[in-house]
Amino acid sequence: MPTAALNMLRVDRLHREPLQAQLYGQIRRFVISGELAAGTRLPSTRELMGQLRLSRNTIVYAFERLVTEGYLESKPGSGTYVAPVHGGMHGRDTGDVRSRTRSYGQRRLSARAAVLAGARISPEYSSALLRPFRPCQPAVDVFSLRTWNRARSSALRSASEHLLFLNDPAGLPRLRQTLCVYLRDARGVRCEPDQIIVTSGSQQALTLLASTLIDPGDAIWIEDPGYLGARAAFSAAGAKLVPIVTDEYGLAIPHATNPPSPRLIYTTPSRQFPLGTTMSLARRLALLEFARSAGAWIVEDDYDSEFRYVGRPLPSLQGMDSSGDCVIYVGSLNKVLFGSLRLGYLVVPEHLANALRTAKEVDDGACPAVDQATVAVLIEEGSFATHVRRMRALYAERRDAFLREARRRLSGLVTFPDVEAGMDAIGWLASATDDTAVSRRLGANGVDAPPLSAYSMRPCEPGLLFGFTAFTLPQTLAALEATERSLR
Amino acid sequence: MPTAALNMLRVDRLHREPLQAQLYGQIRRFVISGELAAGTRLPSTRELMGQLRLSRNTIVYAFERLVTEGYLESKPGSGTYVAPVHGGMHGRDTGDVRSRTRSYGQRRLSARAAVLAGARISPEYSSALLRPFRPCQPAVDVFSLRTWNRARSSALRSASEHLLFLNDPAGLPRLRQTLCVYLRDARGVRCEPDQIIVTSGSQQALTLLASTLIDPGDAIWIEDPGYLGARAAFSAAGAKLVPIVTDEYGLAIPHATNPPSPRLIYTTPSRQFPLGTTMSLARRLALLEFARSAGAWIVEDDYDSEFRYVGRPLPSLQGMDSSGDCVIYVGSLNKVLFGSLRLGYLVVPEHLANALRTAKEVDDGACPAVDQATVAVLIEEGSFATHVRRMRALYAERRDAFLREARRRLSGLVTFPDVEAGMDAIGWLASATDDTAVSRRLGANGVDAPPLSAYSMRPCEPGLLFGFTAFTLPQTLAALEATERSLR
Repeated sequence: MPTAALNMLRVDRLHREPLQAQLYGQIRRFVISGELAAGTRLPSTRELMGQLRLSRNTIVYAFERLVTEGYLESKPGSGTYVAPVHGGMHGRDTGDVRSRTRSYGQRRLSARAAVLAGARISPEYSSALLRPFRPCQPAVDVFSLRTWNRARSSALRSASEHLLFLNDPAGLPRLRQTLCVYLRDARGVRCEPDQIIVTSGSQQALTLLASTLIDPGDAIWIEDPGYLGARAAFSAAGAKLVPIVTDEYGLAIPHATNPPSPRLIYTTPSRQFPLGTTMSLARRLALLEFARSAGAWIVEDDYDSEFRYVGRPLPSLQGMDSSGDCVIYVGSLNKVLFGSLRLGYLVVPEHLANALRTAKEVDDGACPAVDQATVAVLIEEGSFATHVRRMRALYAERRDAFLREARRRLSGLVTFPDVEAGMDAIGWLASATDDTAVSRRLGANGVDAPPLSAYSMRPCEPGLLFGFTAFTLPQTLAALEATERSLR
Repeated sequence: MPTAALNMLRVDRLHREPLQAQLYGQIRRFVISGELAAGTRLPSTRELMGQLRLSRNTIVYAFERLVTEGYLESKPGSGTYVAPVHGGMHGRDTGDVRSRTRSYGQRRLSARAAVLAGARISPEYSSALLRPFRPCQPAVDVFSLRTWNRARSSALRSASEHLLFLNDPAGLPRLRQTLCVYLRDARGVRCEPDQIIVTSGSQQALTLLASTLIDPGDAIWIEDPGYLGARAAFSAAGAKLVPIVTDEYGLAIPHATNPPSPRLIYTTPSRQFPLGTTMSLARRLALLEFARSAGAWIVEDDYDSEFRYVGRPLPSLQGMDSSGDCVIYVGSLNKVLFGSLRLGYLVVPEHLANALRTAKEVDDGACPAVDQATVAVLIEEGSFATHVRRMRALYAERRDAFLREARRRLSGLVTFPDVEAGMDAIGWLASATDDTAVSRRLGANGVDAPPLSAYSMRPCEPGLLFGFTAFTLPQTLAALEATERSLR
């Protein structure tokens, strides 16, 4: 299998589309886009069963349909091949004498669009509403719009006309200055304002990094299970994702299996998403040492480090990197303040700052200046710290209530480890349970708890992810009751 | 010259970096990134002189330095070649026996970053301040923040919690609905809300289109002179830019020269940027017909169509496309309201909507919801139309004053054609004038008027671009006086 396209094949058990239709659609798109060139041999049914964990029937059904429709051809005794359907548009035809031509419209999507078609940044939920226990949701019901609006007015009063102009693509100088002080103090990040690029959140930060640091075919090490948005951003840039197992101490360098050397390593050391573990000091040092010797970038996504309920947080990996040129730090304000804000930041080594600034400028110009100035005022006047403290207390309370009630109600069904930090709890199911099926059953009963397998590239222990931060006690109790009902 | 990289070579006469240093730096980056593979033959000095309009000395200097430093090698009687400096990192080495290895640090930027390094979305100005006559600047000094804030409060009152959640990547349903009605009415766009993708402006719209519609190496036809941001976005996606001449009737299909068939054609028919001409009906029909037969996408960038002072605007090209599947319409709210707002939109054929929505989601999640709702309220309650009328009247006044005074003061130096629409005026210089040098001289005297050559890929008539919308009469008069002083 020479093409990256087939490594991109994946099915989503949470999706309403049947698995065979998903497989059919993906292969069809890759054939139409030319990513799967005519004459390419497809993997055997057995290989795909292993890779995608699909039943033989599902694969055979999808292949038969693709053969019938002329996208694939089956050569008895040899295998299944991509048929020459392009009429030479993409070249590399097999020279098949039948020389079928077939028009799919000349206006095509790009190969990148075909990769994007299968991507998403979060699991698909059966409802667009915010229902318990959707993970990673700040408690916007208690967000103080009054404080926000006051800071906004203050920002506008001091520089209104100036704030209405298109500003520096790297971000408003005032916000970069303020974030710099905040990140040094709160997270031990080593930085100067020039190293900060304001983005619309961690998602855009990852997109910009993928575009400036990754060439098609590069290997990226990525925690598995892990954040879907990182997989999407790096896949879209043509990276080959190498899933790296994380255990209770965080990501472990896989010396034994010897995977392809990474150009970049994506990690969430403060609190692994979605498992919730914190990377140990020993693992941090080993990771830094490995990245230095392998010449790899480390992307440290510190997406919810503000919320730690037990003990003191370890300082950021970025702050531990004495060389100062290997770790890129990513943070978000959308999880601390509110989801629709769309502000976050990158802290990059000095020599990368220009490249990222240009990438941001060409991508979308700049972030909204009034919001940037408002956040700067909030941090400067101390309201941001007050807000974080208030949320931390509220989330700790909600965590206690959730764990107490969930352990009581779901005893014997779901096992909940302690939650020392963050916005979500992992609930382990009995091994061999199909967590996707369980999650779908919960969805039908009004409860959103995505299965761990939705975040996993490789087979994983079955579990569900429960966000507890955005829901009141009555909501939590009612949803746990519904959970119990659907599980018993 | 087989590689796209050399087509990317360009020099910026406005930039403070000397021309030979720019050329040296660009070639060096392409060699390091591997975009210029070892063994590639470089164009001759004569070819580069023609392509880049550089003196022989400038090119020889840059080449000699690159040869001395080992990036290029000169083979007497044959030409100049890229030297095998990568130690096999990128493959394709020529097998040169000297087999030099050279370490540039293992952590590299991507090839795309090398392309981005030379990109920008507007000319470089000698000051970050907004000075006369910077083009394309809304008059934020008269923007009614009070009206904006009232609409914002109204939006928040009706749906505050809801607006704080991360919303649909394609945009807030309310805004898409409202824009749809507005665009049908004001611009004759044929659309349903599902076809609208809210972006942070036309720049992000172009980035998303480049990522979903363009594969590396695809030919893109692009108006020349034209919008730098479009060049940057499509170059970054690996497109080969084919400059297309535009005359007084707009972009003309170049049947005679027979350039490579385009995958996409980028055009500004309502008002060509930066020349200010409007595409004639005949040219519009010819363009649609050509795009249909060539199987090309048309991207219609309608960046400032709100401001027309004479006659009625032609409806959009998109509205004239009876097939409904060939034209993509791009609009911006940042030029109508204020530059730091960061909202714009795409109207795409229905079958593209999903691909663009996913691209937007993976790129940056979504646009800020509160701003989206505020714009929806402004349009719904009629304040948007009032604002546009008010600005149109103000800009017409400023246009009149600018043209009257400029023609009087700069008579014999600069020729100003009439301005029927838009935010900028073209001023033609005597032919054979170096417009870059003139613009730099103005910059030193406090006046920003970028040279036409900054927007041109090929040699063009010398001229300067004067934005007249954002400046009061006293500012305009003072700046014209400074302009006269530097030109006489």
